[in-house]
Amino acid sequence: MPQFGFTQQQILEPKESGVRAVGRAGTISTPHGDIQTPAFIPVGTKATVKSVLPESMKDLGAQALLANAYHLYLQPGCDIIDSAGGVGKFMNWSGPTFTDSGGFQVMSLGVGFKKVLAMQTDTVQRDDVIADHKERLAHVDDDGVTFKSHLDGSMHRFSPEISMQVQHQIGADIMFAFDELTTLMNTREYQEMSLERTRLWAIRCVEEHKRLTIERTDKPYQALFGVIQGAQYEDLRRKASRDLGAMDFDGYGIGGALDKNSLSTIVRWVSEELPADRPRHLLGIGEPEDFFAGVESGADTFDCVAASRAGRNAAVYTKFGRFNITNAKYRRSFAPVTDDCACYTCTHYTQAYLHHLVHAKELLAATLLTIHNEYFVVNLVARIRESILDGTYYELKDEFLGTFAGRSL
Amino acid sequence: MPQFGFTQQQILEPKESGVRAVGRAGTISTPHGDIQTPAFIPVGTKATVKSVLPESMKDLGAQALLANAYHLYLQPGCDIIDSAGGVGKFMNWSGPTFTDSGGFQVMSLGVGFKKVLAMQTDTVQRDDVIADHKERLAHVDDDGVTFKSHLDGSMHRFSPEISMQVQHQIGADIMFAFDELTTLMNTREYQEMSLERTRLWAIRCVEEHKRLTIERTDKPYQALFGVIQGAQYEDLRRKASRDLGAMDFDGYGIGGALDKNSLSTIVRWVSEELPADRPRHLLGIGEPEDFFAGVESGADTFDCVAASRAGRNAAVYTKFGRFNITNAKYRRSFAPVTDDCACYTCTHYTQAYLHHLVHAKELLAATLLTIHNEYFVVNLVARIRESILDGTYYELKDEFLGTFAGRSL
Repeated sequence: MPQFGFTQQQILEPKESGVRAVGRAGTISTPHGDIQTPAFIPVGTKATVKSVLPESMKDLGAQALLANAYHLYLQPGCDIIDSAGGVGKFMNWSGPTFTDSGGFQVMSLGVGFKKVLAMQTDTVQRDDVIADHKERLAHVDDDGVTFKSHLDGSMHRFSPEISMQVQHQIGADIMFAFDELTTLMNTREYQEMSLERTRLWAIRCVEEHKRLTIERTDKPYQALFGVIQGAQYEDLRRKASRDLGAMDFDGYGIGGALDKNSLSTIVRWVSEELPADRPRHLLGIGEPEDFFAGVESGADTFDCVAASRAGRNAAVYTKFGRFNITNAKYRRSFAPVTDDCACYTCTHYTQAYLHHLVHAKELLAATLLTIHNEYFVVNLVARIRESILDGTYYELKDEFLGTFAGRSL
Repeated sequence: MPQFGFTQQQILEPKESGVRAVGRAGTISTPHGDIQTPAFIPVGTKATVKSVLPESMKDLGAQALLANAYHLYLQPGCDIIDSAGGVGKFMNWSGPTFTDSGGFQVMSLGVGFKKVLAMQTDTVQRDDVIADHKERLAHVDDDGVTFKSHLDGSMHRFSPEISMQVQHQIGADIMFAFDELTTLMNTREYQEMSLERTRLWAIRCVEEHKRLTIERTDKPYQALFGVIQGAQYEDLRRKASRDLGAMDFDGYGIGGALDKNSLSTIVRWVSEELPADRPRHLLGIGEPEDFFAGVESGADTFDCVAASRAGRNAAVYTKFGRFNITNAKYRRSFAPVTDDCACYTCTHYTQAYLHHLVHAKELLAATLLTIHNEYFVVNLVARIRESILDGTYYELKDEFLGTFAGRSL
């Protein structure tokens, strides 16, 4: 049974002198196959990429899928996925799989989060101060998080140990340590306190992971990635990277709310501190324009729901930005959905057909537009990888960002 | 360019003596390929089999698809489908296609129909009596039908000529003549009047079809099927069959409301009168148990939305009847969705996974259950064909109906 591993194949030389090289092309090895990096990992939140067959995901170039421990814990229950032989087998996906820790979801889902956010701008950020807020669905303490299911309101608790147990039952090749989610609006004081909590949780995750790995020799090895928090603070990000970098993690996730302008800077701080022989995953990023910033700053893998969600909302990714296929000008356009795209959707269907499907509220619209958008991001990151290997990265970057006009056309 | 044709390959000998042989195995030839009959033709109402890729339909054995002239006329508009190169090209289906005439839908869709039906049981059935009924969305006269769109309430008119023009624009290989829909609740007097109207419309359809065929030499030949009405009356069904049988139709549809008990009898009356060298399509039928009655009585092809609609409602077809996958007993069942089924869904997914997808309201549930149910009916009719060819039809019928317990388990 192959174990987990990561090899660097080509370092991306920075364009500016004096900047440390952190970008690279590499290969992550897992028991269910290799991932050639940089790579975009499409999200199958509830053990399905919404509206798309796994074979279609494979055909469009997806190397691995990322499912969500929080969602699967609530529904169908991780014991069921364990009995099914793990999430890959459950969902008919034979390649590598990831699960996130559930930390982000237990703290962000439900009605409470936005109100808590608003409140936090006016208050000293101590969780005991905001715990009593009526709307809050999640209460964080030093041992873990108590939260209310967004499905039925039932109460649940995640701790570092429980997250590890849940993720071991789900059985993905790559798991993430349980961390606390903060926001850019939290105070510096709260970020420091939270980061220490995440550090202590990381230690507990590694311990519980080791215990479970020894206990469950019937399963392929699951790799554990620590999650680097620290918000927008350089010293906190670097400290967290050194702290967790010294622990026995197989790789690292870069977490927390990142605004687009600071994304590159923050990922670079982290990449400079983390051990270079382990892969770095940028959690929940990104939009097409984010990949270049991420890769140059040292990110090896990415996941994001934006591409598939956009597809379900009739938005089509193109190299110029995105457009909405419901616009009347596509009603009788018999051109491919986008030009110069080799995806299944663009090679088999017209803009007029997709326009019709969306207006007729046909389910196939979601399928075809998700296939296109996922192809777009998977293929863009694959081209970034190729450009690192053949030394044309900066040409590709200039070409792409030269025409790409952001989110909507 | 191959034209339309039908060849009989094997006659099914009736089990009872003295009964005329009308069941058969054959081949329908169209410009887009052959259909081996008996065959079930899945429905793609709006130029898509809801939630399923055309390649999946081909893989499960579908030989042809049937779209709906009424729906496509309203959305996206048949001129758009014409510009796209016809419905097959529009929807990425290279095989043969059917369209119904729109007659059934213009008269049955919308809020009015059930109320009109109820009223008609108490009234002399003359369309001028019921035309004023407030709720009615369709008004029939001798020249055609004026109806209100179920989408936006706009007013439209179909006549035999317009139906032919619409279906020529949609460009399916097999079209149906425009007919009046009656119900089993109409009086005998109304049925006679309606049947004469449908006869006169059939003549107009043939004429308009000939005109359009000569006009549009840029397109492959489209075959036209006459539709046999006559409700539950033997003399009316036989007369309609003789009348339309003498006209220049390429094949025939058997229409009208048929209750399950009289289905076999009515189809037999029609099949005995129609010219044996032309195919017979049983419109809107059926459920698994209907195919045997239909084939023995002379039906060559079938279409019905039941299988896909059941799939979208979490109902799974099996040889014992159908069951609902949402039932709690499937929550941790890791058996295939059904036993002994070679379809994509049953060979790749468990009952537990489908149960999860339905409960999680995931779109893929509709896709996978539709694939299974369509495979079930397509494959059942394909097995009926094989059994006619190898002389084991009655064994297959006894075996299937011996275990099949009707609609729900």
